[in-house]
Amino acid sequence: MSLVLDPAAQDLLFREARTANTFSDEPVTEEQVQAIYDLVKYGPTAFNSTPLRITLVRSAEARERLVNLMAEGNQAKTAAAPLVAILSADNEFHEELPTLLPHFPQAKDIFFSERPAREQSAVMNAAMQAAYFIVGVRAAGLAAGPMGGLDYAGVQKEFLDDDHTPLMVVNIGKPGPDAWHPRGPRLDIDEVITTV
Amino acid sequence: MSLVLDPAAQDLLFREARTANTFSDEPVTEEQVQAIYDLVKYGPTAFNSTPLRITLVRSAEARERLVNLMAEGNQAKTAAAPLVAILSADNEFHEELPTLLPHFPQAKDIFFSERPAREQSAVMNAAMQAAYFIVGVRAAGLAAGPMGGLDYAGVQKEFLDDDHTPLMVVNIGKPGPDAWHPRGPRLDIDEVITTV
Repeated sequence: MSLVLDPAAQDLLFREARTANTFSDEPVTEEQVQAIYDLVKYGPTAFNSTPLRITLVRSAEARERLVNLMAEGNQAKTAAAPLVAILSADNEFHEELPTLLPHFPQAKDIFFSERPAREQSAVMNAAMQAAYFIVGVRAAGLAAGPMGGLDYAGVQKEFLDDDHTPLMVVNIGKPGPDAWHPRGPRLDIDEVITTV
Repeated sequence: MSLVLDPAAQDLLFREARTANTFSDEPVTEEQVQAIYDLVKYGPTAFNSTPLRITLVRSAEARERLVNLMAEGNQAKTAAAPLVAILSADNEFHEELPTLLPHFPQAKDIFFSERPAREQSAVMNAAMQAAYFIVGVRAAGLAAGPMGGLDYAGVQKEFLDDDHTPLMVVNIGKPGPDAWHPRGPRLDIDEVITTV
């Protein structure tokens, strides 16, 4: 085999891991969230900018507000999941660069003085971190249910502010009965990778 | 511990893994690339759209053209890495949706008939897949060196086309001498995660 990662870990993170659509009642603890963050915070981003922000929706009142902003097909599972997280990109991430990039604090002003450049970088790097986060949820033995079917403007208005762009909502928990849809096909390698 | 993933895998993928700046001469084989793809192709994306495309720059002629398009600080390592990959987003990914999403082929026309919506979704989901790819490179026991310092318009013109948006260039190989810069700081969890 060409991979060093052991097969059980391959299964846990990619091969057997699936987007869950139902969840058990078992809570997701703060300790689990802390452990996930303490692992995936090391995933690389441009300029070590780490613009992902995470809003955990734990209260019943907040959950109800969020469910009302989800697409109809996502409402029942978002209401039932043990934990729901709103992932967003911090468009003012550059304010942290002097701390995050101590050897090159000028990057803040050289590359990110204009908001459009910040937004573009924030969304791309936060999307990378969203992927690390999903891998981390799986590393904790939990299933993730990332969803893009939602009222983005409504979620931003209700839960975030103008400086944070919502990327997706992720249901988190142990999978429940009939949690999985059939796995979708994947592209063949020669449809994805070309060599020059 | 709150993680199920074993500590060696945590180290391999996140804790000990680092962005490499020098590489050994050991080649990266087609078998390794195949194994990486066959693992990370399972990472979830919206609508199973999997818009990431990868251009492996293997020929000396192509490598020279790419090096000339990299920022000065990235040129030497891009010239020296055993393998270099251009990661891009396919803005016409929707053409594959009837294959990739067989239970909902209408998604192609309902959500992605307009190019701006396609570009936005392609970049976000390809960025997630870029993160899975970096994790996969590490799963193969290799180091990744993702870089955003490059002439994006030039890379698109020289290596891609109008339908593919370049996201980053990734050097791949076994790390060489002095491969690592000091690890940058990370944000505290309470700077990243809030609870409502």
